[in-house]
Amino acid sequence: MGNEAMAFLGAGLGAGIAAVGAGYGIGRIAGYAVEGTARQPQATGDIRTTTIIAAALIEGVALFAEVICVLLATKGA
Amino acid sequence: MGNEAMAFLGAGLGAGIAAVGAGYGIGRIAGYAVEGTARQPQATGDIRTTTIIAAALIEGVALFAEVICVLLATKGA
Amino acid sequence: MGNEAMAFLGAGLGAGIAAVGAGYGIGRIAGYAVEGTARQPQATGDIRTTTIIAAALIEGVALFAEVICVLLATKGA
Amino acid sequence: MGNEAMAFLGAGLGAGIAAVGAGYGIGRIAGYAVEGTARQPQATGDIRTTTIIAAALIEGVALFAEVICVLLATKGA
Amino acid sequence: MGNEAMAFLGAGLGAGIAAVGAGYGIGRIAGYAVEGTARQPQATGDIRTTTIIAAALIEGVALFAEVICVLLATKGA
Amino acid sequence: MGNEAMAFLGAGLGAGIAAVGAGYGIGRIAGYAVEGTARQPQATGDIRTTTIIAAALIEGVALFAEVICVLLATKGA
Amino acid sequence: MGNEAMAFLGAGLGAGIAAVGAGYGIGRIAGYAVEGTARQPQATGDIRTTTIIAAALIEGVALFAEVICVLLATKGA
Amino acid sequence: MGNEAMAFLGAGLGAGIAAVGAGYGIGRIAGYAVEGTARQPQATGDIRTTTIIAAALIEGVALFAEVICVLLATKGA
Amino acid sequence: MGNEAMAFLGAGLGAGIAAVGAGYGIGRIAGYAVEGTARQPQATGDIRTTTIIAAALIEGVALFAEVICVLLATKGA
Amino acid sequence: MGNEAMAFLGAGLGAGIAAVGAGYGIGRIAGYAVEGTARQPQATGDIRTTTIIAAALIEGVALFAEVICVLLATKGA
Amino acid sequence: MGNEAMAFLGAGLGAGIAAVGAGYGIGRIAGYAVEGTARQPQATGDIRTTTIIAAALIEGVALFAEVICVLLATKGA
Amino acid sequence: MGNEAMAFLGAGLGAGIAAVGAGYGIGRIAGYAVEGTARQPQATGDIRTTTIIAAALIEGVALFAEVICVLLATKGA
Amino acid sequence: MGNEAMAFLGAGLGAGIAAVGAGYGIGRIAGYAVEGTARQPQATGDIRTTTIIAAALIEGVALFAEVICVLLATKGA
Amino acid sequence: MGNEAMAFLGAGLGAGIAAVGAGYGIGRIAGYAVEGTARQPQATGDIRTTTIIAAALIEGVALFAEVICVLLATKGA
Repeated sequence: MGNEAMAFLGAGLGAGIAAVGAGYGIGRIAGYAVEGTARQPQATGDIRTTTIIAAALIEGVALFAEVICVLLATKGA
Repeated sequence: MGNEAMAFLGAGLGAGIAAVGAGYGIGRIAGYAVEGTARQPQATGDIRTTTIIAAALIEGVALFAEVICVLLATKGA
Repeated sequence: MGNEAMAFLGAGLGAGIAAVGAGYGIGRIAGYAVEGTARQPQATGDIRTTTIIAAALIEGVALFAEVICVLLATKGA
Repeated sequence: MGNEAMAFLGAGLGAGIAAVGAGYGIGRIAGYAVEGTARQPQATGDIRTTTIIAAALIEGVALFAEVICVLLATKGA
Repeated sequence: MGNEAMAFLGAGLGAGIAAVGAGYGIGRIAGYAVEGTARQPQATGDIRTTTIIAAALIEGVALFAEVICVLLATKGA
Repeated sequence: MGNEAMAFLGAGLGAGIAAVGAGYGIGRIAGYAVEGTARQPQATGDIRTTTIIAAALIEGVALFAEVICVLLATKGA
Repeated sequence: MGNEAMAFLGAGLGAGIAAVGAGYGIGRIAGYAVEGTARQPQATGDIRTTTIIAAALIEGVALFAEVICVLLATKGA
Repeated sequence: MGNEAMAFLGAGLGAGIAAVGAGYGIGRIAGYAVEGTARQPQATGDIRTTTIIAAALIEGVALFAEVICVLLATKGA
Repeated sequence: MGNEAMAFLGAGLGAGIAAVGAGYGIGRIAGYAVEGTARQPQATGDIRTTTIIAAALIEGVALFAEVICVLLATKGA
Repeated sequence: MGNEAMAFLGAGLGAGIAAVGAGYGIGRIAGYAVEGTARQPQATGDIRTTTIIAAALIEGVALFAEVICVLLATKGA
Repeated sequence: MGNEAMAFLGAGLGAGIAAVGAGYGIGRIAGYAVEGTARQPQATGDIRTTTIIAAALIEGVALFAEVICVLLATKGA
Repeated sequence: MGNEAMAFLGAGLGAGIAAVGAGYGIGRIAGYAVEGTARQPQATGDIRTTTIIAAALIEGVALFAEVICVLLATKGA
Repeated sequence: MGNEAMAFLGAGLGAGIAAVGAGYGIGRIAGYAVEGTARQPQATGDIRTTTIIAAALIEGVALFAEVICVLLATKGA
Repeated sequence: MGNEAMAFLGAGLGAGIAAVGAGYGIGRIAGYAVEGTARQPQATGDIRTTTIIAAALIEGVALFAEVICVLLATKGA
């Protein structure tokens, strides 16, 4: 096996784990957002703004990780 | 074993883990969404919009990961 | 062992883990849906619509993962 | 060891994990369904319909995974 | 070691994990069923029907997995 | 090491894990059964029937797994 | 290392894990039994009967597993 | 390494895990027993009897496991 | 395999785990922030400031980790 | 490496895990005991008796495990 | 593989795990801080001071760990 | 590597795990003790006595484990 | 690989895990501290003193661990 | 690799895990202490005394473990 073998393994696992991270984080925020909307429909605007700001921060790190994984998955190509 | 062996292992595991991530995240959001709908049926529209926006963000990262796994699973093909 | 060996191992494990992901996600949504239906039978329609939309999103990713696993399981066949 | 060795290992583990996934998912839905039935016996019909639709979705992915495992378990036979 | 070695390892672990899956799923459903029966003894019939339908679905997947494990455990016999 | 080595390892681990599955499942059902009995002693009969039906389903899968493990543990004997 | 090596490792780990299973299951049942006794001392008889029936089912699977482990631990003796 | 090496490793790990099982099980029962005693001091007798019966069942399995570990730890001595 | 092989594996896994860390941390903060906004819409400003300060601290460590992973992923390039 | 190598590894890990078991079990019992004492100071005697009986049972298994570990740690000495 | 290989693997994993540590710790503090702010907006100043002091302590250890990882990641450069 | 190598590895890991055990156990007891003291300051004496008795039992097992680890860590010295 | 290889791996992982320990511990204390401050702003001084004393104890152990990791990370330098 | 390699790996991991143990234990105690102080500021003295006694016991075991790790980390120096 050459160096790329481990890059491929790391890419596959890393992509999956990053998706878990994004799923957990955004799922938690949006879960409370939906709950809050149901309780106080008139605060929907404020809630949605906070949700999207925080989700963007998580999305950023997760996509950064996915890009590293693409970078690894295309080694030696 | 050549380099592809590890790519195949990574693809299989990564695809599974990414599905867990998507399942956890969307499951959490939609769970609260359903609960909220049951409590306040008149807020169904707002709830469903927030749910779909957040689910799309998670779906994006998860499908990104699945695409990396397809990329790995078809190495050397 | 050839390259296919790891593809087979990955396919088996990945298929199992993806089923856990789908089970967790859809189980969570439908669990709350059933609970909501019991609390407010007249909101059954709205609840069932939201449940099916979200379950479809999870089902999509999980089946995508299963397809990758079939793809790996039939390597060298 | 030939390629089949890993296929057999993956089949055994994957079949077990998929059963966990199905058990968790359907167990969660039906648990709430039973609880809801106990609280509102007159909503039994609606509850049972939602339960069976969602359980079918999970059952589908789990059986898909089991089929992949059978496919792996009979390699080289 | 021949190919059967891994089949035997997979069979043992898979059988155990599948039992965990069935135990978790049926345990959860029946736990709530028992609780519901204690709260509303007159709904015992409806509760028991739902319990048995859902338990059968889990039992099906778990026994499917056990059969795969038997299939692996008797390789080369 | 021959093929039996892995059969022995799988048998030991599988037997233990299956005991965990049975312990979890039956423990959960009977725990709620005991709690229900304490709350409504006059429903003891119905509760005990549901408990034993469900426990039998779990016991079945767990003993199935134990039998597979015995089968593996006596390989080459 | 001969075949017995793995039998010994499996026996040690399996015996420990089975003890965890029995501890979890019986601990859960008896915990609720003790709690129920404290709440309704006059239902002690019914509670103790249910506890012992269920504990016997778990004890059976756990001792089955321990017997398999003894069987493995005395391989080649 | 001879066969005893794995017996020694299994003995050490198994002894520790069995202690966790006993600790969890008896800890749970006695925890509720202590709580019940604090709530209803006049039921101390009934509570202590149930506690000791159940603890004995767990202690039995755990000591069985410890004996297997001693048996393994003194291999080749 | 050269030294880079392990660097690639570490990069993939580390990037994924760091995304989990960021997802957990920011998800927790923003979840409570959204909940707080829903309860007291007039405190939205204070809440959002605290959220962003804390999220920035987590984002900092997570991006630091991602940068290390990029550094590893481009070894020998 | 000789047989003792694995005995030493098992001894170290087993001793640690057994300490976790004792810590969990006794910690749980004594935690509730302390809570009960705070709620009903006049039941301190009964509570302390139950606590010490149960703690002794756990201590017994844990020390049994520690003795096995000492036995392993002094192999070949 | 030279000594640096393991340094690279350790750097990648360590950086990720440290990010989880920081995410968990700061996420927990700031989560309660946000909740407290929502409940008592007039205590925002005191809350934010305590949050920042504690977050700084965690940030310190996490960055210390990241620096060790950078140190490892640039071995042999 | 000689026999001592594994003794050193076991000593390091075992010492850490035993510290976790002591931390969990004593942390749980003392946590409730502190809570109880805050609720009923006049029961401080009784609470502190029970806390110290139970903490001593855990401390005993944990230090026993640490002594085994020192014994292993100084092998061949 | 020389002896330093494992020192580097241990340093990376240990630094990360220690950061998790500090994050968990200080995060828990400060989380309750912030919550307490929000409930009783006039007790801020007492709360902050207790927080800092306890955080210092954790910080001490965590930094001790980090120093060991630096010591390992600079082996052979 | 010589014997020291494993000593270094054990030292790094053990130091990290011991820090987790101390963090968990002291974090739990001090968390409740802070909460108690917020509820009953006049009991601050008693609470702080109990906290420090218990924290010292945990600190003792954790530092014992750290000293073992230093001992291992300086092997062959």
